[in-house]
Amino acid sequence: MDHVDRYPFYVIFRLLFLIMAIYLPPIILASQSPRRRQLLEWAEVEFTVEVIPTDETFPPDLPVEEVPVFIAREKARRVNEFRNPHHLTLLAADTIVVLENRIIGKPNDAAHAESILAELSGKTHRVITGVVIQHPQVEVAFAEITEVTFHTLTAGQIKHYVERYQPFDKAGAYAIQEWIGVVGIQSIKGDFYNVMGLPVSRVVQALHKLSLH
Amino acid sequence: MDHVDRYPFYVIFRLLFLIMAIYLPPIILASQSPRRRQLLEWAEVEFTVEVIPTDETFPPDLPVEEVPVFIAREKARRVNEFRNPHHLTLLAADTIVVLENRIIGKPNDAAHAESILAELSGKTHRVITGVVIQHPQVEVAFAEITEVTFHTLTAGQIKHYVERYQPFDKAGAYAIQEWIGVVGIQSIKGDFYNVMGLPVSRVVQALHKLSLH
Repeated sequence: MDHVDRYPFYVIFRLLFLIMAIYLPPIILASQSPRRRQLLEWAEVEFTVEVIPTDETFPPDLPVEEVPVFIAREKARRVNEFRNPHHLTLLAADTIVVLENRIIGKPNDAAHAESILAELSGKTHRVITGVVIQHPQVEVAFAEITEVTFHTLTAGQIKHYVERYQPFDKAGAYAIQEWIGVVGIQSIKGDFYNVMGLPVSRVVQALHKLSLH
Repeated sequence: MDHVDRYPFYVIFRLLFLIMAIYLPPIILASQSPRRRQLLEWAEVEFTVEVIPTDETFPPDLPVEEVPVFIAREKARRVNEFRNPHHLTLLAADTIVVLENRIIGKPNDAAHAESILAELSGKTHRVITGVVIQHPQVEVAFAEITEVTFHTLTAGQIKHYVERYQPFDKAGAYAIQEWIGVVGIQSIKGDFYNVMGLPVSRVVQALHKLSLH
């Protein structure tokens, strides 16, 4: 009898879910980065956020250019485990900082952040964002590369930035839109917003091709 | 008798002026652009704003690269007419948009803005900001060039941007930090903040050399 008793509730639940799916934005952003959310808002893309903690390890022999797409796909896979994949489109992204073919991660503490910035000082590095868009029938994946050249930073500038801005959640220990980006970056080559974490214009073009925006 | 009666007030006035000059930030920004103010704030530069309306014409045979420095110097000269030049440092800037060696000005109306953006669509143009810093004994002047490449924009995108964002006060009829910049710009080469109106990192370096920041 048990499954029969519960059946009406199941029907109501499914109906509610369908109604919600119609009214919810069709895109799920699988990222908790406030910068990515802001960029999508600036681009006037409607979305909701769903994030599941993801293991960000990757095969050690993977070329660096492929690493952020690999991790973005993993983020998408994790969210997909918990959702109905036939309803919505998933957008996942991961950004890495690469200096001389070596991935520069997030700093562990202030001393580490200072040593990372001292390494980036006066040099050109690459910021690579991997993007994975999963639509029910199709996956679009690409990596966008922007070159960033820092002025030579003084030890005082580095110390001031790390103490005041605490860049511990940021790959490469800096954010281009913060003080160090404004006074310390000489030039970039490529998409500026990619350095903030999402190559928005390519994402919007891809969504447009999927008739989603 | 008249000038004798007024003398004590004159002394008090001069004293007040000197005290204010000590406490006021040492830099005067000769620009009413809210974007330039914001950039200097992000760079943690203290300043006050003084603007005098300036005639922005220039000699017709001036090479385009020299035009914004010419206009910035004119803005500085106008403010200097009304201040005590021995006290403070003046920072003036002017930004122009150049397509195929032709200066693209500010749009007159919505139709003009749309035709400017249709021209920039799918092409690379240059944004040149002229900066003039006048310190009591020395003038620093330079032009910073950033190349900006637009995706091919649709008529619908252009219309939406002009209607919603009203870019009539902007050279080239767009702002890189607004919707059209986020979804429509493919890449840039050079200083991003220069496109917003001020090559902040070079300005800060110049002020630093003058021991002002």
